[in-house]
Amino acid sequence: MEKVNLREKLSSFSTHWDPKIVGELNGQHVKLVKFHGEFVWHRHETEDELFLVLHGCFDMQLRDRVVPVAEGEFIIVPRGVEHRPVAAEEVHIMLFEPAGTLNTGNVRNERTYEATRA
Amino acid sequence: MEKVNLREKLSSFSTHWDPKIVGELNGQHVKLVKFHGEFVWHRHETEDELFLVLHGCFDMQLRDRVVPVAEGEFIIVPRGVEHRPVAAEEVHIMLFEPAGTLNTGNVRNERTYEATRA
Repeated sequence: MEKVNLREKLSSFSTHWDPKIVGELNGQHVKLVKFHGEFVWHRHETEDELFLVLHGCFDMQLRDRVVPVAEGEFIIVPRGVEHRPVAAEEVHIMLFEPAGTLNTGNVRNERTYEATRA
Repeated sequence: MEKVNLREKLSSFSTHWDPKIVGELNGQHVKLVKFHGEFVWHRHETEDELFLVLHGCFDMQLRDRVVPVAEGEFIIVPRGVEHRPVAAEEVHIMLFEPAGTLNTGNVRNERTYEATRA
């Protein structure tokens, strides 16, 4: 049981849209990820997903509106809801979601990454 | 689906050791709590518990050692492991744990609070 320093883990990678696992509990993963630019529209059939902004800000695009999420804020996207994160500048995010959640959800393309440990 | 601002939620209560639910996903709760002073030794039989420090720092006392946890760090205490948080000064924490987790785990005393929504 070791503590995890977010800044240290964030400095260990520089890729975008490529979540890194930094913790596991109760069948859930804690991940860190950096966003920059536009992601792909997708949904997760069986997983709710929490996005907590650590540095920066981004827009969570939903089919009917856009929710801007800033540092110190989080949003939970329920299972089944289509979403697309868009970040005009680099943003650092902590994710909470079930172990095994795929970053692109129901879509598989060149943006799909299996999460690895930071 | 609304975003949650941590600072706003933290300013809505001033009690200590009294976790407030600010989010729910995948059967898990996201809670905010303020620690100050010494808590009670306890364990959770079936729940792993994540403590992320938002402001301040605290010591996670374990039976064989102490882990100091500072702002921007988290620690996951696995189920079954006795622990006692101690905070010399007020510290603000985000908790991530299964819905229904009791703050005092296997102990019920005057420090026991059923979590309510912030």
